[in-house]
Amino acid sequence: MTPPPAQQNGNGAAVESIHTPSAYGPKYADFLSRVDNFSIIESTLREGEQFANAFFDTETKIAIAKALDDFGVEYIELTSPAASEQSRQDCEAIAKLGLKAKILTHVRCHMDDARIAVETGVDGLDVVIGTSSFLREFSHGKDMTYITKQAIEVVNFIKSKGLEVRFSSEDSFRSDLVDLLNIYRAVDKIGVNRVGIADTVGCANPRQVYELVRTLRGVVSCDIECHFHDDTGCGIANAYAALEAGATHIDTSVLGIGERNGITPLGGFCARMYVANKEYVMGKYKLHKLRDIENLVADAVQIQVPFNNYITGYCAFTHKAGIHAKAILNNPSTYEILKPEDFGMTRYVSIGHRLTGWNAVKNRVHQLGLKLNDDDVKAVTAQIKELADIRPLNIDEVDTLLRKFHEDKKVGQESAAMSADDDEPN
Amino acid sequence: MTPPPAQQNGNGAAVESIHTPSAYGPKYADFLSRVDNFSIIESTLREGEQFANAFFDTETKIAIAKALDDFGVEYIELTSPAASEQSRQDCEAIAKLGLKAKILTHVRCHMDDARIAVETGVDGLDVVIGTSSFLREFSHGKDMTYITKQAIEVVNFIKSKGLEVRFSSEDSFRSDLVDLLNIYRAVDKIGVNRVGIADTVGCANPRQVYELVRTLRGVVSCDIECHFHDDTGCGIANAYAALEAGATHIDTSVLGIGERNGITPLGGFCARMYVANKEYVMGKYKLHKLRDIENLVADAVQIQVPFNNYITGYCAFTHKAGIHAKAILNNPSTYEILKPEDFGMTRYVSIGHRLTGWNAVKNRVHQLGLKLNDDDVKAVTAQIKELADIRPLNIDEVDTLLRKFHEDKKVGQESAAMSADDDEPN
Repeated sequence: MTPPPAQQNGNGAAVESIHTPSAYGPKYADFLSRVDNFSIIESTLREGEQFANAFFDTETKIAIAKALDDFGVEYIELTSPAASEQSRQDCEAIAKLGLKAKILTHVRCHMDDARIAVETGVDGLDVVIGTSSFLREFSHGKDMTYITKQAIEVVNFIKSKGLEVRFSSEDSFRSDLVDLLNIYRAVDKIGVNRVGIADTVGCANPRQVYELVRTLRGVVSCDIECHFHDDTGCGIANAYAALEAGATHIDTSVLGIGERNGITPLGGFCARMYVANKEYVMGKYKLHKLRDIENLVADAVQIQVPFNNYITGYCAFTHKAGIHAKAILNNPSTYEILKPEDFGMTRYVSIGHRLTGWNAVKNRVHQLGLKLNDDDVKAVTAQIKELADIRPLNIDEVDTLLRKFHEDKKVGQESAAMSADDDEPN
Repeated sequence: MTPPPAQQNGNGAAVESIHTPSAYGPKYADFLSRVDNFSIIESTLREGEQFANAFFDTETKIAIAKALDDFGVEYIELTSPAASEQSRQDCEAIAKLGLKAKILTHVRCHMDDARIAVETGVDGLDVVIGTSSFLREFSHGKDMTYITKQAIEVVNFIKSKGLEVRFSSEDSFRSDLVDLLNIYRAVDKIGVNRVGIADTVGCANPRQVYELVRTLRGVVSCDIECHFHDDTGCGIANAYAALEAGATHIDTSVLGIGERNGITPLGGFCARMYVANKEYVMGKYKLHKLRDIENLVADAVQIQVPFNNYITGYCAFTHKAGIHAKAILNNPSTYEILKPEDFGMTRYVSIGHRLTGWNAVKNRVHQLGLKLNDDDVKAVTAQIKELADIRPLNIDEVDTLLRKFHEDKKVGQESAAMSADDDEPN
C-alpha cells in the first residue's frame, strides 16, 4: 500500500528528476523535466471500456491486467465499481490478483461512489469532476465552491481509508486557470497524492500543455497526472510536453482505445519515450511484448491493428525508396530511430518496385549468394524498374529475375551497359 | 506560374500573419505565427508512393490529384520523373491537367534530376539533400561545402527556367545547426522560394521543432516548409508547432501514408487546424470531402481506414459513457471539439451497455415518442445496465426493451422505485 518513492505525495518533481540529455533531446539538463522518470497509468480497463466496441468480460479483463502487469506498467486503472454490479465484482477480482502494478479505479468525485470503491480492495482511487464552464453548465451544474468542498470531503475520506487518491479536473484546458489552481492547491494542502489534468475533448496542443503543467508544478507539491484525448492528433506529443514540464504520470490505453477516437496509445507513447531515453524505457517495460498485448486487446474489441500503428503496424519498419534502402543497409540508424529488434520486430527492405535502387538490389543478390558485379546489378535493377513500372513485383518474382540474370550471364554474354549512376531519389 | 502573395519568396512571415486568437489558442496575437495563414503541400503522390503497399497507375494518380485539387490543397507533390519512365510521363500528364493546385515534383539536389524535371511542365521543384552526419557518412558521403555548391547550382538552374524551387535538408533534426543555417541562408540569398526542414526519421518533438523553426525564421526571408514523419507520434503536433513558430507550408499525405508508418496525415492535420481557426480552415478546404478522398486512397493501396482515424474513423464521433452522453445531448460542445456535420459525419450516442446513463436513455425514449417519467427512465436504465452487464445490447434490443417497458406500464403498474440518482461515472 505504501507508494514507492517516485509516486509519493509531496516529493516534488525537482528533487528526483536529474535529466540526462539524450542524443535527440535538449542539450542541457532541465531539472523539472520528468522525461527520464515517469509512471504509466494504464487505462485500457477504464478509458478503453468507453471505446465504442469495448465489452470486457471478467476473464478478458484479468487477461489484459496480467499482460499489462507483465509488461511493466506502474498502475492499472479500472472502470468505476459504481457503474454496474459486474464492474464492482471485477474491481474486487483484479485487486485480489496480487499484481505488481497498483490497481486504481476511476470514480466521480462523490461520496456515494467513493464509499463503494474503497471497499473493493483497490490500491487507490482516481476521482474526477468537471471544472470547465461547459461541463458546469451542461453536465453537473455545480459551482467551484461546491466542487472544492466536495473534493476535500472525498479526498479526506479516501485518505482516511489508507488509499492513494488522485483528484482530477475534467476538460482542464477549457477551465478557468485560476479556478483550476485554486482547487488543485486546496487538495494538495490536504495531502492528495496526485492532481490530474485532463484534455477530455482533445483540444490541447503541446506548448499549451507545457505552460499549464509548468505553472501547476510551481503551485502544488504532489505528483501531476495527465490524460490526453487524441481527437486532433496530439495525444502522444502532449504527454511528452507534459513530462518535459514536470508531470509525473501519464494515462495510456492499448492502441489508444477510449471515448471517441481515444487517448495516448501505450505503444506510441513507448516509441516516443524510447527515443528520449532508450535505456530507461527498456529497463522498465518489456517492449517486445507490445505486439502480443495489442493483439489481445484488438481481438477483445474486434478491431484490426491499424496499418500505420506505431511500432507494430505492418509498415513501421518497411523501407522502400532506393535512397533510403541504400542507407539503411549501410547503417540502420540513418532512417530508423527505433531499432525493430528492441520491440521484437524485424526490418523489411522492399525492392520490387519502381522506386528501387541498385544498392538494395545488390544486397538481395548477396543474400541469394549470386555473383554479379556492380554493372550487372545496375542492369538488372533497370530491368526491375521497367517491369515494376507496369505493376509491382513480389520478392519471389524479383528473386527469379535475379537468378535468371545470373544464369544468363554464366551461359553467355549479357548486355549490361546501363547508365544508372546512383540510386534513384525519393 | 506566378506564386500567389502568400507563397512569394521574401514576403517574410511577419508581414502577413495577423494571428486572431481562437478560443483554444493563445490569448494574445503572435505576429510570427502562421497558424492562420499556411499552405498544404500534399504529398500522397510522392511520399505516399513510398508507402509499402503503394503502386499508383496513371489513372489512379490523376483521380487522386483531381480529388486533392477539389478539396483545396495549395500544392500537389509528385514522385521524381527520374525514378522511372512512367513516373516522368505521369508528371507530364498531371502538370497538363490544369488544376488550381500547383504541381511540384520532388528530386535529389542534382543537375541530372533537375534537368529532367524542369521539362515535365510542373510548376516547381522540391529539391532535397541529406545534411545529417548520418546521411553524409552512410548515404551520399558528401561534405557541406560540396552540398552548398551543388545546392546553389541546382537552385539557380531551376530559377533560370522560371520555376518555383524549394531547397530542403533531409534528417534536419540530426544535422548540425550551424551547417543548416549556413546552407539555408546561402540559398535564401539567391532567391529560393522555400527552405525545407524534414524530420526524416520521426525523432523530433514539438518544442524542439518550435525552437528550430523560430531560429530559422530569423535567418531567412523566404518561406519555410516542414515535413514530419510520425514514427514517434508527433507528426501532427510538430506541424502545428512549426506553424506557431512561423513555418508557412506543411507536407501531408492522405491517411499519412509514406515511408515506414508515414507522415502528418491530411485529415488529422485538418482536425488540428480546424480547432485553431475553424473559419479559416473551412473557408479554404472542403472538409466534407475528406472521407471520399481517404476511401479513394485506401482502396488504391489496399488498406482499411484505421478504426481510430481522425475525423473519419468509425468511432470518432461515438459517445459512450453515461456522463458524456448526458452532456453531449445537452450541448455537443461539452465533449466535442469538432462538429461532425462540418466534416459530413454524424454523431452517435451509444446506450446499450453497462456504462450507460439515464439521461441518454431518456433521449432515446423521446426519439421513440414514448411517454415515461424520470423515475420510469431510471428504472428501465437499471434494466439495461443489468442485461448489458452480461453482454452489450444493440439499439434494436434497447428499443424493444423501452417499448415493452412502456407497454407494461400502460397495462398495469410497474415497480419503478429505483435509486440511481444521477448518471453513472466515466
